[in-house]
Amino acid sequence: MVMKKRKLGRGVAMVGAGMSKFGAFPDKTSRDLFAEAFGEMEKSVDKGFDPRDIESLYIGNFSSDLFEGQGHTAPIMADWVGLVPRPATRVEDACASGGVALIQGVIAVASGMYDMVLVGGTEKMTNLPTERVTDTLAAASDVLYEAAAGFTFPGLYASIASAYMARHGATEEHFMRVGVKNHENGALNPKAQFNTSIANFMKRRQAKCQEQGQPVPDWKDEIDFLKDAAFNPMVAWPMRLFDCSPITDGAACVLLVAESLAKSFTDTPVHIIGAGQASDHALHERADLTSIGAARLAAQQAYDMAGVRPVDIRIAEVHDCFTIAEIVATEDLGFFYPGHGARAIMEGLTRRDGVKPINTSGGLKSKGHPVGASGIGQAIEVWHQMRGQAGKRQVPMDVPLAVTHNVGATGGTCVVHVYERR
Amino acid sequence: MVMKKRKLGRGVAMVGAGMSKFGAFPDKTSRDLFAEAFGEMEKSVDKGFDPRDIESLYIGNFSSDLFEGQGHTAPIMADWVGLVPRPATRVEDACASGGVALIQGVIAVASGMYDMVLVGGTEKMTNLPTERVTDTLAAASDVLYEAAAGFTFPGLYASIASAYMARHGATEEHFMRVGVKNHENGALNPKAQFNTSIANFMKRRQAKCQEQGQPVPDWKDEIDFLKDAAFNPMVAWPMRLFDCSPITDGAACVLLVAESLAKSFTDTPVHIIGAGQASDHALHERADLTSIGAARLAAQQAYDMAGVRPVDIRIAEVHDCFTIAEIVATEDLGFFYPGHGARAIMEGLTRRDGVKPINTSGGLKSKGHPVGASGIGQAIEVWHQMRGQAGKRQVPMDVPLAVTHNVGATGGTCVVHVYERR
Repeated sequence: MVMKKRKLGRGVAMVGAGMSKFGAFPDKTSRDLFAEAFGEMEKSVDKGFDPRDIESLYIGNFSSDLFEGQGHTAPIMADWVGLVPRPATRVEDACASGGVALIQGVIAVASGMYDMVLVGGTEKMTNLPTERVTDTLAAASDVLYEAAAGFTFPGLYASIASAYMARHGATEEHFMRVGVKNHENGALNPKAQFNTSIANFMKRRQAKCQEQGQPVPDWKDEIDFLKDAAFNPMVAWPMRLFDCSPITDGAACVLLVAESLAKSFTDTPVHIIGAGQASDHALHERADLTSIGAARLAAQQAYDMAGVRPVDIRIAEVHDCFTIAEIVATEDLGFFYPGHGARAIMEGLTRRDGVKPINTSGGLKSKGHPVGASGIGQAIEVWHQMRGQAGKRQVPMDVPLAVTHNVGATGGTCVVHVYERR
Repeated sequence: MVMKKRKLGRGVAMVGAGMSKFGAFPDKTSRDLFAEAFGEMEKSVDKGFDPRDIESLYIGNFSSDLFEGQGHTAPIMADWVGLVPRPATRVEDACASGGVALIQGVIAVASGMYDMVLVGGTEKMTNLPTERVTDTLAAASDVLYEAAAGFTFPGLYASIASAYMARHGATEEHFMRVGVKNHENGALNPKAQFNTSIANFMKRRQAKCQEQGQPVPDWKDEIDFLKDAAFNPMVAWPMRLFDCSPITDGAACVLLVAESLAKSFTDTPVHIIGAGQASDHALHERADLTSIGAARLAAQQAYDMAGVRPVDIRIAEVHDCFTIAEIVATEDLGFFYPGHGARAIMEGLTRRDGVKPINTSGGLKSKGHPVGASGIGQAIEVWHQMRGQAGKRQVPMDVPLAVTHNVGATGGTCVVHVYERR
């Protein structure tokens, strides 16, 4: 399909952002987590604001129905943060629910209907046993043709990974290095579920073996550790445990306003200058598994709207639900040629100090993946990095332009946003 | 809350509409039903159009997750009607999911992002046993405080009905007369699930008794029949079986374009000139049960945007998930004073030949209530009535202005649209 160049009726800026800690919180519902995120967002608005000026809410959520037995979750979130009677709309596109809520918020402000919109995401996943979470997530596949054939998400992404290996000669180590990098970043992110590096996992494991009088494994580095099937078991070849993002509880929200109002809230707003969304057939119907067509189209649309090229982008948060997904994402976003995403990870180009830092937050892999909230969590990371407020994980260069890339299922949905700090 | 007067960046018109038959279709999935609706919509565009010009889809759906085990339903619908790779977004606000998808479609066109948007709704409910459907719908209540206390929707609406009776002196007969009227309308709607009047139910039942040699009940009219607990059993006092909308499979969609393009598709577009949405606390938290606050606010916003008054509106499709809900709706929309909604139904004011025809389609009560599709079904009825294409149920007056009113749960969400034929 030839993409029409699109533009918004008026510009949109992000002037506040907040998220709960991502992790497993047995005593918290998604209401509690959302209230936590909202509280942090309120404090983040530099010049302050009156929450009563929020005119509408969009909530990304994959399936509070299946995870918590609660449908109609948007007005409940509105109620829990004191925003009744504002319109409250839940948006669902599997793991892209957060990113798609964000694009709806952008569209809503651009439409002239609302000047100030809250966009949030929430998911409470850890109260179900792991196998039921896996089944619940499998509802995001094409259930009649994929889940029915025995596919769950590790298997679906394993198909992508093995196709990528076959075409580009990548190895398991390429995937492992994505995990190593993202855990290094997540170790510097106090909100991350796995707030630790893989080197630390390795050392802790060695110490434990010593403590228990067992033979201490002779791992020289993280890759040694990750290759040891006893500690990093295969889930679906070639995806091992440390190639998979975790099951997570979490919530996040950002505050959007019409561009013309942004400076009354902060001197450093982050403008959303490009937005693109696309759909695709389910994985089993696709001719090529090594690239996500919806991501390429969404990126093209977002870049065209923003008037920027991939090379202009300084950092990106991409959808690394599995390590292979990050490699494919960096190619779909036009940062690297097909097959070169794997090379880039080996050469350290996507590390925090590389030419194209990817997932400085730790990504879904280390920060955690509360599915409906993940897309908003990405926007929050670029918000912090662009404003120089990312603490120990702040990249060592100025970030005037950034991108987020959020995928639903195996790419049935993809949404890409381009951000500019002015 | 003082409502700010809102306006859209540009006008939006409806130029096509189609729906599946509403009913119980054991052999059809929501994909089949949506394709059926889409096919009818394609034929409805007077001057024709190229479906490839559709730029984005919004799909209202309450819970394909719980009903069909299928999440991420929007891109599947897009795929099934050949619209991949267009953005496909599911919108959920319980039984208002269709109406809220419509307002997102309106906002999306108004934003300048898209010139042509498809808005649909779908729900496939009848493949679960009735008690599981009731439980699934109860997920739209505040599960921690309502479903957990034993409430399902008939009970929640029964609370509204008994509060209304206490305040306004209404009787069960007032509610029954809503059902009689809506079944009379539905008897003239070939798409209705119960394409028959209550008089017909009554006659059929009498004939059956005679046939089986049983004593023939001595019902003089429909109200006699409805008062007979053997044939119209109590579900939750004062709501009986014939006060409840049915469990339904169905899909519906409408085609929206920027106002300036409307005349290239039809000489009689239906413009959406007002749109309002609001949220409310769950029912157990409200001070007053006899009115739905979100409906009053959504209506006020839609009227203000349109620059019209309730008295200007010729017909309305309102959310009669239970008969009491229609009475309350006609008051919340400003057609009648509090307490007078019940009088209006007794005096026939809301019949097809009355001063304010309500639910000429048969409403959710008779046409059926596939929850995610119901809000779109309402828009389709006003589309037909305003264009003089409603067949035997066409109202006997010109309809330049109409309203739809779609409620999520017990009013946690309400969305109101105002339509004008120019």
